Amino acid sequence: MEQKPIPDIVVGRLPIYLRALQRMAQDGQHVTSSQEMSERLGISAAQIRKDLSQFGEFGKQGTGYNIEYLVEQLRQILKVNRVWDIAVVGAGDIGSAVARYQGFADRGFRVTMVFDIDPHKIGLMLGKFTIQDYAQMAELIRTAGIRVAMITVPASRAQEVADELIKAGVKAILNYAPININVPEGVYVQHTDPVTHLQRMTYYLE
Amino acid sequence: MEQKPIPDIVVGRLPIYLRALQRMAQDGQHVTSSQEMSERLGISAAQIRKDLSQFGEFGKQGTGYNIEYLVEQLRQILKVNRVWDIAVVGAGDIGSAVARYQGFADRGFRVTMVFDIDPHKIGLMLGKFTIQDYAQMAELIRTAGIRVAMITVPASRAQEVADELIKAGVKAILNYAPININVPEGVYVQHTDPVTHLQRMTYYLE
Repeated sequence: MEQKPIPDIVVGRLPIYLRALQRMAQDGQHVTSSQEMSERLGISAAQIRKDLSQFGEFGKQGTGYNIEYLVEQLRQILKVNRVWDIAVVGAGDIGSAVARYQGFADRGFRVTMVFDIDPHKIGLMLGKFTIQDYAQMAELIRTAGIRVAMITVPASRAQEVADELIKAGVKAILNYAPININVPEGVYVQHTDPVTHLQRMTYYLE
Repeated sequence: MEQKPIPDIVVGRLPIYLRALQRMAQDGQHVTSSQEMSERLGISAAQIRKDLSQFGEFGKQGTGYNIEYLVEQLRQILKVNRVWDIAVVGAGDIGSAVARYQGFADRGFRVTMVFDIDPHKIGLMLGKFTIQDYAQMAELIRTAGIRVAMITVPASRAQEVADELIKAGVKAILNYAPININVPEGVYVQHTDPVTHLQRMTYYLE
């Protein structure tokens, strides 16, 4: 049976649900409800039920959701019931912070390579990584079969880095450079820029 | 005349438009079109025209948009034709990176205070800032009239930090902790978590 594609806006909420559920599990909780999730997340209970029902029958009216089961299902749906290796390109402040970031553990990712173009940085240790030469990046990524990368270079270099990554086989890019990057079909990009988040909020301030 | 509220999803795209337009201006360009913006941003030209038309008459059919004028209008709409002071709470890796981040300049924001709870960090310099004591945070923020803050503390502390910030008068919070935080009406929060971005992409990978 052909499945209807799930809207990306729904896909985007699943990691939020998974994060909340994993935290409940860490806190020793076994069962939750769309109502409780709604209070935690500020998303309506009806929306949560509707989103989850697109992927299957996860809860029963009146008995709530089994957290452990729902976590496993969401991890499978999001394909994070495995560990994706990540290449970080750019060993500046943000690159250093994400390379050392503790929040990847148990959530499906680990940084395995860090690259920079600056000869003064190449060879230095960054946490447990040796900063590697950007000139070798494409080959190392291709050999390791890496599919996920983070770009933390200046805006002026971000597109060319993305192009190199994609040629080397990367399919998912999280871009920290404050510029939009274009990717071909079949490659996914997400942008994260603190200023666009902040501006979206100042719109509402007096 | 009462104006209809603009959907938040539209508000969220305005900073993306502004960023692209400011870059064009930096590159010496004076006029653009919804078509050119569409190619840069991967958002349809019709959508861009529709979004911008909600705020006024910015371009004429056939002559395109005057970039300088549109930048000024968007800065005014997003209330970043001024500079908002930011307090950063948490002087770890991410806090340090955002406190030193160069990308705020000319985009409406500047970090002016950094706080931490760790006695070993309080008093140290972080870039041009002295890390200040979290115990003094509420009073310093209230006195300075700060409305915007970034939370870069561990997930287990994020909600209590948010509560403190809000009591001190903060109205807009960018949360880097990998947990959802709840805020009362009239306070705005945006979450930024690399893992939720990554998981949204791995969903689509083979």
